[in-house]
Amino acid sequence: MFFTSDNGGPAAPEVLAAVTRAFEGTALPYGNDPGMDSVRQKIRDIFEAPEAAVYLVATGTAANSLALASMVQPWQTIFCHRNSHIEEDECGAPEFFSGGAKLTLLDGDHAKISPESLQNAIDFNASNDVHHVQHGALSITTVNERGGVYSLGEIKALCDIAKASEIPVHMDGARFVNALVALGCSPAEMTWKAGIETLSFSGTKNGLLGVEAVVMFNPKRAWEFELRRKRGGHLFSKHRFLSAQMEAYLSGDLWLKLATKANKAAARLAAGILKIKGTELTHPVDANIIFASWPRKGHVAAHDAGAQYYIWPDGQSLDGPSDEIISARLVCNWATSDAEIDQFINTIS
Amino acid sequence: MFFTSDNGGPAAPEVLAAVTRAFEGTALPYGNDPGMDSVRQKIRDIFEAPEAAVYLVATGTAANSLALASMVQPWQTIFCHRNSHIEEDECGAPEFFSGGAKLTLLDGDHAKISPESLQNAIDFNASNDVHHVQHGALSITTVNERGGVYSLGEIKALCDIAKASEIPVHMDGARFVNALVALGCSPAEMTWKAGIETLSFSGTKNGLLGVEAVVMFNPKRAWEFELRRKRGGHLFSKHRFLSAQMEAYLSGDLWLKLATKANKAAARLAAGILKIKGTELTHPVDANIIFASWPRKGHVAAHDAGAQYYIWPDGQSLDGPSDEIISARLVCNWATSDAEIDQFINTIS
Amino acid sequence: MFFTSDNGGPAAPEVLAAVTRAFEGTALPYGNDPGMDSVRQKIRDIFEAPEAAVYLVATGTAANSLALASMVQPWQTIFCHRNSHIEEDECGAPEFFSGGAKLTLLDGDHAKISPESLQNAIDFNASNDVHHVQHGALSITTVNERGGVYSLGEIKALCDIAKASEIPVHMDGARFVNALVALGCSPAEMTWKAGIETLSFSGTKNGLLGVEAVVMFNPKRAWEFELRRKRGGHLFSKHRFLSAQMEAYLSGDLWLKLATKANKAAARLAAGILKIKGTELTHPVDANIIFASWPRKGHVAAHDAGAQYYIWPDGQSLDGPSDEIISARLVCNWATSDAEIDQFINTIS
Amino acid sequence: MFFTSDNGGPAAPEVLAAVTRAFEGTALPYGNDPGMDSVRQKIRDIFEAPEAAVYLVATGTAANSLALASMVQPWQTIFCHRNSHIEEDECGAPEFFSGGAKLTLLDGDHAKISPESLQNAIDFNASNDVHHVQHGALSITTVNERGGVYSLGEIKALCDIAKASEIPVHMDGARFVNALVALGCSPAEMTWKAGIETLSFSGTKNGLLGVEAVVMFNPKRAWEFELRRKRGGHLFSKHRFLSAQMEAYLSGDLWLKLATKANKAAARLAAGILKIKGTELTHPVDANIIFASWPRKGHVAAHDAGAQYYIWPDGQSLDGPSDEIISARLVCNWATSDAEIDQFINTIS
Repeated sequence: MFFTSDNGGPAAPEVLAAVTRAFEGTALPYGNDPGMDSVRQKIRDIFEAPEAAVYLVATGTAANSLALASMVQPWQTIFCHRNSHIEEDECGAPEFFSGGAKLTLLDGDHAKISPESLQNAIDFNASNDVHHVQHGALSITTVNERGGVYSLGEIKALCDIAKASEIPVHMDGARFVNALVALGCSPAEMTWKAGIETLSFSGTKNGLLGVEAVVMFNPKRAWEFELRRKRGGHLFSKHRFLSAQMEAYLSGDLWLKLATKANKAAARLAAGILKIKGTELTHPVDANIIFASWPRKGHVAAHDAGAQYYIWPDGQSLDGPSDEIISARLVCNWATSDAEIDQFINTIS
Repeated sequence: MFFTSDNGGPAAPEVLAAVTRAFEGTALPYGNDPGMDSVRQKIRDIFEAPEAAVYLVATGTAANSLALASMVQPWQTIFCHRNSHIEEDECGAPEFFSGGAKLTLLDGDHAKISPESLQNAIDFNASNDVHHVQHGALSITTVNERGGVYSLGEIKALCDIAKASEIPVHMDGARFVNALVALGCSPAEMTWKAGIETLSFSGTKNGLLGVEAVVMFNPKRAWEFELRRKRGGHLFSKHRFLSAQMEAYLSGDLWLKLATKANKAAARLAAGILKIKGTELTHPVDANIIFASWPRKGHVAAHDAGAQYYIWPDGQSLDGPSDEIISARLVCNWATSDAEIDQFINTIS
Repeated sequence: MFFTSDNGGPAAPEVLAAVTRAFEGTALPYGNDPGMDSVRQKIRDIFEAPEAAVYLVATGTAANSLALASMVQPWQTIFCHRNSHIEEDECGAPEFFSGGAKLTLLDGDHAKISPESLQNAIDFNASNDVHHVQHGALSITTVNERGGVYSLGEIKALCDIAKASEIPVHMDGARFVNALVALGCSPAEMTWKAGIETLSFSGTKNGLLGVEAVVMFNPKRAWEFELRRKRGGHLFSKHRFLSAQMEAYLSGDLWLKLATKANKAAARLAAGILKIKGTELTHPVDANIIFASWPRKGHVAAHDAGAQYYIWPDGQSLDGPSDEIISARLVCNWATSDAEIDQFINTIS
Repeated sequence: MFFTSDNGGPAAPEVLAAVTRAFEGTALPYGNDPGMDSVRQKIRDIFEAPEAAVYLVATGTAANSLALASMVQPWQTIFCHRNSHIEEDECGAPEFFSGGAKLTLLDGDHAKISPESLQNAIDFNASNDVHHVQHGALSITTVNERGGVYSLGEIKALCDIAKASEIPVHMDGARFVNALVALGCSPAEMTWKAGIETLSFSGTKNGLLGVEAVVMFNPKRAWEFELRRKRGGHLFSKHRFLSAQMEAYLSGDLWLKLATKANKAAARLAAGILKIKGTELTHPVDANIIFASWPRKGHVAAHDAGAQYYIWPDGQSLDGPSDEIISARLVCNWATSDAEIDQFINTIS
């Protein structure tokens, strides 16, 4: 009963096999392995973006920070939701990689940026006054930090506001594929067709060992990105570790299958939880993350049975009246089994 | 016939198996996997350093830069050889991670820092004048960029000079184990007993997929290191990828066996080359790297046969008089076979 | 009728005479001029702080940024009001000088930080989680950006909260003397006795040509400050320009007299405005800054008569119904005359 | 007998009067004072550069660092002489402002960069390899750190080499006017006509209180410069302090007259010294700086008489055999009198 995070899940066997194969012989280092050519082509095909620049790194923080640093100047600001990963969970990595850019925090329910909040923030920071930081980039996350998936219309609305002020848009796709299968649209529709300039396209949370692609639909600053990646210590000599994962991931629709499994598991888990008296979903379940609350006794039972997940937000205790409502975060991964889910629901019921 | 670099070599089967095992189930993320406890203990035992702080990252540039950034302030300088990797091959990563520290370049034959050069540089930059950058750290590399291994006496002599000016010492151990087996000493003797404060202990070039340990014999700035690692995007969520490699590497003397094989291969290759008329070793062969020169016709033959290695330095052409002497760099890895070596020697003879 | 800002006011004749005298002969450069010894001693005496480190720079942004950079690490956050000068008016200077620290924005009426807002922000950013930025410093401004002066009790309450979490406190004293004479307390009471560690003590806005003292009541990082000042290009070779101003300023209570005049002018101006029908003070007038609103026709008349001040906030037009209420900011300086004030009041009446 | 540095000299009376006048009334802050318009026009006229962007700051380190930061990216290198001020005397300011760029140190006699040294360094750092720092800018200093003035031909030769590799050129003109009057050419000839893109045009060392103009002959990054200046704390609110100095300086050929006086004083001093037995000029005297050596007894006599200058290089003692040769640096300023010079020569004879 492991619901701590999808980044704690196992790797897909196809991917492990590919990594093992890649390391049986020799290969040129630093991204000159033949696997990378294939990955680049696959991503361009999948995104219908034959000119896109494609690079691989090993962590989501690296992908986001390097992407954003290539989009903003040190004296600019990045507009993002106040609950975004880049604000709350990267220990200031965007500030570090950008040379000290600011993050302007936006509001909106369920960790989705509201168009009004974005427009107000842009208007407040007029970008022609030397005393203020200047407009840099907009960063939106989907699946976001509260499990929400932006609709295509919502993505486009934000991109349109940004575009009107010539602000490029980054998408933090730590769970991009989970959002994609939830929407049922094409990768191009979710990104450049809606106005996204640069995407952090994650595999780590969806069954890989650690790889993220940065996809720059406008390749004008590709060489700068390469230099930043090297300078940031993120260019792997044994780069085939990254290429091999991504190639296996994008072959035979594995990426889509894994995310579909995770989303289905979450749907089953959410449905099961809702059948219990006194439970509630505290945010809509759009993909593979569930925010729910139920009586403390259910949490105690889960804890005693060894279930792993976060009480959310921090600071709620397992000690106290057994009927009091306690909220939690549960994340499913591609390998979360029906048996595991059902056992969990039985435990907390 | 692959002599481009040891970072192009295959991974050891024991390590691949360990990585695969590590990803079959779930694990807590961000270094909280149980494997890390074991790795930390193994490294402390091997280095006879029960208090050492131990962290894993995936690239040598990250290890060096994060280690150095934790040792120097932005207004200080790092003393290093002018041919060191941190100066020539990291695209300014030490400057980036340190917030703009300087590198003061030292001289010495065969890429070894001479004590005189170090002493002169320290004296020149008096560390109490606000107009100059201040004394930061000394960084020494062994095996160094020209294949040289510092003797224990040489390491100690440099550390003593640094210590007299209260300058902490970093060792770039991109090929630490190759140097260790060349010297036949203990890891403690090569490091903290000689005066090293922080070590970049690499596995990537010696049969792993991508992992480097930073070992801080003085753990006073360990928490700062953890924050810098996270902020630099170098804290893996699926950290078990790093732990699993390192644990397999340090088990059953695998690390020593692999480096011994690489060094032996280089010795065989060097001996074979020297038998050819007109050849010469341009630097002493201390470990697994060979710098040698031989007539152009031998290079042409090697090239035609598909051998891979660097003409070194850049700028020498394969077109020209066939007897002219051309120099090259050849690196052996743990998997370089006798057959491969003998074939190469035959080819260039 | 000049109410744009106190930084647009004239310099005091005593100060201009002192600067002229200082430049008639030769002097050692870079702060080794004899005037600096005298300034240091005067400031230590005035603040009853014999151990304080004292440095001069030429701009408020330099004083604030260098002071804060010496108090925080790059992976930490600076708690400040969302309307503070360091957030809104320094183009990211604190981020630049600190190497990318974050600013956590606090709330509170009239640009005063509320204790609840500070406590909540500290609690939210638990300072032992590697994923978050860490606690850095608290920065409070008095006179603040809306003209408010913190009472001694208010300063102490904020410092006590910070101290309980081991967070050092910076005071942005761009108008320190105006606040001091408003409170009628001693400089020590307003600073280190209340819990302030480092003060930006400005003279520029109060009749000088351009000089700010940074006063570090805890001198442990004084040498670091000196290095940061030099490295930031803020160490003057002809440092006597700074010393001469500050020495004249602190002689014969000139500093207090100038601020008293500015505050009195503001009180007269505020009283005059309030007599006009339809006017209102939009923030309390605690020192020399007035936020007030009155009918548009008064603004038009002032504008036509050549009066200079900011319509505040931006975006209100002088075109429109003549009785509509428009708000503005008016700042008095030491040289603002009663005649000027009375003329202005007559004009807008 | 003050020969410590020209930055220790007095200010010209015309300049002091202008500063005093500028502060008698009110003025708009932050460079919006009317004086700045006049300064901008004067500099454009003098340099025959009607499109040039012109900004004022207060220190040479700020001028150099902000100029260079606007010319290079963090992953690039600045080519400069190893004895340049930006390398030896700014505590790493170029690294700080540029976000961690490197300085590549060049050689050449008398602190002049030799064309060979520049060409070799450019060739060594091939600018298309992601592992190396990239070509950034060339910075040349005249009058340089050993008193040398580049001829127009020498400037052009270096600029041509840089231009062939698309490397923009910065001139550190800490003593630009002293070099200009030494060459007897036009400001345009010494700068953009020879290939200089950006100039640090100093007044501080030539009779002002503290002001430097940055002149960008190519204004494409002017707005970036303004943001960097503000963010660096170098935008003065009472900017008229800077404008007033520069306007008086450029009026009635004052700038040329002051530098001519300083150069003549140095010529007289050098001639006088050379008449003494056992003396020698250790570098050519091209402008207002003298490097000379003479017997220790002369230094002792000078010291006893209260003469101020630097024994150069550091580390030579006034104790020892009286006939031993000791070397020194002597700098003349616009106000150095013939009497002072003659007294000094008599003293050391």
